Amino acid sequence: MKAVQVVGYHDKLQLNEIPDPQITGPLDVIVKIGGAGVCRTDLHILEGQWAEKSGVALPYTIGHENAGWVHAVGDAVTNVAVGDTVILHPLITCGLCRACRDGDDVHCENSDFPGIDTDGGYAEYLKTTARSVVAIDESLQPADVAALADAGLTAYHAAAKVARMTRPGDTCVVIGAGGLGHIGIQVLEAISGVTIVVVDRNPEAVELAVEVGAHHGIVADGTHVDRVLELTDGKGAEAVLDFVGEGGATAEGIAMLRRAGNYFVVGYGENIDVPTIDVISTEINFIGNLVGSYNDLTELMTLAAQGKVTLHTTKYPLDDFQQAIDDLDAGRVRGRAILIP
Amino acid sequence: MKAVQVVGYHDKLQLNEIPDPQITGPLDVIVKIGGAGVCRTDLHILEGQWAEKSGVALPYTIGHENAGWVHAVGDAVTNVAVGDTVILHPLITCGLCRACRDGDDVHCENSDFPGIDTDGGYAEYLKTTARSVVAIDESLQPADVAALADAGLTAYHAAAKVARMTRPGDTCVVIGAGGLGHIGIQVLEAISGVTIVVVDRNPEAVELAVEVGAHHGIVADGTHVDRVLELTDGKGAEAVLDFVGEGGATAEGIAMLRRAGNYFVVGYGENIDVPTIDVISTEINFIGNLVGSYNDLTELMTLAAQGKVTLHTTKYPLDDFQQAIDDLDAGRVRGRAILIP
Amino acid sequence: MKAVQVVGYHDKLQLNEIPDPQITGPLDVIVKIGGAGVCRTDLHILEGQWAEKSGVALPYTIGHENAGWVHAVGDAVTNVAVGDTVILHPLITCGLCRACRDGDDVHCENSDFPGIDTDGGYAEYLKTTARSVVAIDESLQPADVAALADAGLTAYHAAAKVARMTRPGDTCVVIGAGGLGHIGIQVLEAISGVTIVVVDRNPEAVELAVEVGAHHGIVADGTHVDRVLELTDGKGAEAVLDFVGEGGATAEGIAMLRRAGNYFVVGYGENIDVPTIDVISTEINFIGNLVGSYNDLTELMTLAAQGKVTLHTTKYPLDDFQQAIDDLDAGRVRGRAILIP
Amino acid sequence: MKAVQVVGYHDKLQLNEIPDPQITGPLDVIVKIGGAGVCRTDLHILEGQWAEKSGVALPYTIGHENAGWVHAVGDAVTNVAVGDTVILHPLITCGLCRACRDGDDVHCENSDFPGIDTDGGYAEYLKTTARSVVAIDESLQPADVAALADAGLTAYHAAAKVARMTRPGDTCVVIGAGGLGHIGIQVLEAISGVTIVVVDRNPEAVELAVEVGAHHGIVADGTHVDRVLELTDGKGAEAVLDFVGEGGATAEGIAMLRRAGNYFVVGYGENIDVPTIDVISTEINFIGNLVGSYNDLTELMTLAAQGKVTLHTTKYPLDDFQQAIDDLDAGRVRGRAILIP
Repeated sequence: MKAVQVVGYHDKLQLNEIPDPQITGPLDVIVKIGGAGVCRTDLHILEGQWAEKSGVALPYTIGHENAGWVHAVGDAVTNVAVGDTVILHPLITCGLCRACRDGDDVHCENSDFPGIDTDGGYAEYLKTTARSVVAIDESLQPADVAALADAGLTAYHAAAKVARMTRPGDTCVVIGAGGLGHIGIQVLEAISGVTIVVVDRNPEAVELAVEVGAHHGIVADGTHVDRVLELTDGKGAEAVLDFVGEGGATAEGIAMLRRAGNYFVVGYGENIDVPTIDVISTEINFIGNLVGSYNDLTELMTLAAQGKVTLHTTKYPLDDFQQAIDDLDAGRVRGRAILIP
Repeated sequence: MKAVQVVGYHDKLQLNEIPDPQITGPLDVIVKIGGAGVCRTDLHILEGQWAEKSGVALPYTIGHENAGWVHAVGDAVTNVAVGDTVILHPLITCGLCRACRDGDDVHCENSDFPGIDTDGGYAEYLKTTARSVVAIDESLQPADVAALADAGLTAYHAAAKVARMTRPGDTCVVIGAGGLGHIGIQVLEAISGVTIVVVDRNPEAVELAVEVGAHHGIVADGTHVDRVLELTDGKGAEAVLDFVGEGGATAEGIAMLRRAGNYFVVGYGENIDVPTIDVISTEINFIGNLVGSYNDLTELMTLAAQGKVTLHTTKYPLDDFQQAIDDLDAGRVRGRAILIP
Repeated sequence: MKAVQVVGYHDKLQLNEIPDPQITGPLDVIVKIGGAGVCRTDLHILEGQWAEKSGVALPYTIGHENAGWVHAVGDAVTNVAVGDTVILHPLITCGLCRACRDGDDVHCENSDFPGIDTDGGYAEYLKTTARSVVAIDESLQPADVAALADAGLTAYHAAAKVARMTRPGDTCVVIGAGGLGHIGIQVLEAISGVTIVVVDRNPEAVELAVEVGAHHGIVADGTHVDRVLELTDGKGAEAVLDFVGEGGATAEGIAMLRRAGNYFVVGYGENIDVPTIDVISTEINFIGNLVGSYNDLTELMTLAAQGKVTLHTTKYPLDDFQQAIDDLDAGRVRGRAILIP
Repeated sequence: MKAVQVVGYHDKLQLNEIPDPQITGPLDVIVKIGGAGVCRTDLHILEGQWAEKSGVALPYTIGHENAGWVHAVGDAVTNVAVGDTVILHPLITCGLCRACRDGDDVHCENSDFPGIDTDGGYAEYLKTTARSVVAIDESLQPADVAALADAGLTAYHAAAKVARMTRPGDTCVVIGAGGLGHIGIQVLEAISGVTIVVVDRNPEAVELAVEVGAHHGIVADGTHVDRVLELTDGKGAEAVLDFVGEGGATAEGIAMLRRAGNYFVVGYGENIDVPTIDVISTEINFIGNLVGSYNDLTELMTLAAQGKVTLHTTKYPLDDFQQAIDDLDAGRVRGRAILIP
């Protein structure tokens, strides 16, 4: 089969002909790829940023946001059947450690991460296990939802926490109106009664965020903290959902937070640097957020099938992988770039 | 190996020589049995009460409360190693359905139940999978803890719910001071600040319950509802943990329950029969309880290793299985009967 | 002022001229009534059904679903000011008992219930306390929202519990497409991602329920349990929200409930009569629901101000109280009847 | 009556004869002080550190950890009666704001703080309101429990959160074996199944902490982070309860925390300074903790009455207030200093 592989760090990706994957274990699942998201992390892999951490042997196939159709299954697979449309949870988890046994897949003690430390989805087929495949509604096209597998799942996971911890009349400030922010806003609008205030430096992104469901849009122009305080009777928001995490976002986000409020950290880059006296005197919390669980992904796919969460994509044939990479690197992609084998 | 098998309903159990189980799949685990609990359910199996429901083909090996040492493992087993002391969760679960993915093993859509619908633990060896074996502290003897695998796990599961829903100063009435009641009381004492009131018809059982941790013991002599109300300023208890569920227990339990209280159903036999107007005007809840999850079992084993939960047992060599069954049937067993191969 | 009073049971209500209420305590609030809901309970009061339970001395002013504007306040009132538009929580609570201190107003140990055991809102003015008045958005008209104060608040309270205990992809069956059902459906649609299936005997009511937000409407024609099972892959719904509670609704509702599901009891009339073996083997819960808390009412008023929850009303001048009562008794009121002084 | 008052910042406290407080409102309560805790905050008040923040007019009576007996009550007081033994919640709350209505007293928008911004308890009598007085078991002496009113309540509040978020087998590292640490350890031991590891620089404090309930004591000698990791299979603790918050405690505490762990901030002084990438990649949370609620205080008093939480005190007659202050300032007090009028 055709597969786009990393052959060397700081080298270009290469399209290779490699053997088709085969079923060898009872829980194996082979997926015919219908769409693979091209992500900024892929650029970082090529730059060698993940080399030491992943320890992956080259060459290997990248691509960690994958969806498609089940092509073959092992004897013990009960959750999907050949022909099912599926999206892949980013991790292959063991199902045996305490975290897995609590449904907390992301903290699995023995996981693989296809596209990062084992073969991924820039290819015609991908071999995974039953624990990674989520059957989705037939109305959904793999290429339309693939990018929800990782970035979207992270946004869903955090937004669903916000939903559980807020009530109608509460305010959630969403910092960052990019891809994750748009997903987060759509999720909040779909499953919570919270009032959504989006803050971003880019006026167009703010406008688009309001179109997809934010109730108030604020351009980050230096007055944005004050404007959030005005909207909240000077008290701040019950929740801040920060998809930025750099460039001063955390200090501003804390300034927008109400007493007893919750700060959801998703974006990263800078440090949270906050006096403990402020943490205790206002009794605020900081909540870390990684990608969601397998069940989170099924819930997000429900919202996608209901049309409540959508994503703009730009599609490329698999052979045009270099163009997709170049477009992403140059900021020329609207929404998410998707490779289609 | 030697195995005690059901050869016909309404027949006696029979000790047969059968082939040792073998590892055939990557997640298989073979356990050398160190102790198998003899349970009233085993008597019911022999009477044919489970024949239709389980659909098991005869002959098969019974015994559903099992502990021992890992004898062999498949290639993909990461959570235990040969030689580990283990207790077996009563179910072999799929790990793939939504319930399993939420850590809610008991509602697995594709589970087996060794000793009920597949070979169990009245034998030298038992074949199960990695998802059923919980490694326990080496200080614990399988024969001492085997009976915690099912009955004890049910009591833990319900008592842990009580613990999460009560606070110091709240009262929990435990109805039934038998085996499950004693485990429940020890768990409540170990992990909650609730005041424990035990109610039972048997004065000796009440006395023993107070010894293992109940703060108040009440003999059910017709005045017991009033006595619970006296202990709670006429308001009733925040929680009722009912291990009886028959003989009028539920009506009495409801009469002991406070407004906004929670009634935990564990024992069964009669109907809950309560006017909806009473349910809504006092805003009470009824909480069903089945056996606990895999992680519940690890938590219970922690308490056992810490000496916070203990169980009285009467041990028999495996060959004396008939004596154990007869003693149980005749009410001659103190605590739980355990077979040791 | 004018007030419509109960002067004798089995007598007609009477319009009397009585003294205006006066501020006498620091937390007193006098509300100029803008709308008072006419409720079936008012008919029951006239029939004497509440006489013994309330112990109220005649004559007194009825009306327990009230909204209006603040007319006067005591010295210590900080949450509302003269002129504010307000809705009244049905209870006047003490603020001192443990339930009040937990925000669980409804279980206050020292509450009054205006319109039931003290003077209510079929009048020009009503005297209450600061703990009962919720300031609402100026865009809301008291006459439009008054009926949300009790019936609507009950529906909100139960639906908000459903929202907290379900996820996208879960199903909630709403039994009963009447006034409470419509509020419940609007609330579920506004704050949860649950799939809503409404069941009612009346085809028009089902149709209207679908218009206000239910995703599936099922006419209760004898096949409705099966149809719910079909919609849920034969597994039943994660939640049943029962606004009927009589005529066999509870048995049917239980049959529609999934393993580990939650049954929310709101309507009443018949008994819940369920074998304990069914409760434990499927591990289902029954959740009682009374009217909501003060904070629940603020949340519902947020949804009302956002246009997410609306109510059809038929308005009458206060002087036409007899017509309103007669229309209600004869089933001639569309939506809720509201008196306007 | 006699009252010890602040007459000027940087001046000594002064014993004055002032008028007895009088009941003027329906919810007023006058408490005859039985014990008033002498706290380090009192030293800070004298140094003027609170002058601007509290805005209190001099002279005024200090003392914010108070217990005694009810001396007189206003007309509307229903939760205590004259003669009751009581402890005082540190805040006088409004009961009307959203926080109060949720039982979240500490975030009341209109609170007074006796001893800080209004007259406190270094006196024969203190005037407060019904919302601040918690009736306690008659077996408890006010002088023995007064210091639980603020410091102890803070420790209880945080430890009770740990209890709700942990399970048997989980580890909680308690940083700081001083007064709050001892209370926290006793609470964890009483109401949770968590394994408690205490860390402190002072070997004697560690030893004492183990005596009151910690399961492992570690002297902070530079190897303590490694020793916690050893105790937790290299994974770190599920919870860190930090009563220090300065001198590098937070960085060390974070290093001791497991993936998906919760860091409870109680002590303060330094900044939490943590890369957002670490927060999200390990998905950890930081939980702020202020003093507990009124209901938290009732729960702590239940544990005190049960003998599960005790406090060492050194008692002084009110007239010897200067000696108590001097002893505290010089580090000569064992446990907490208490003034007894």
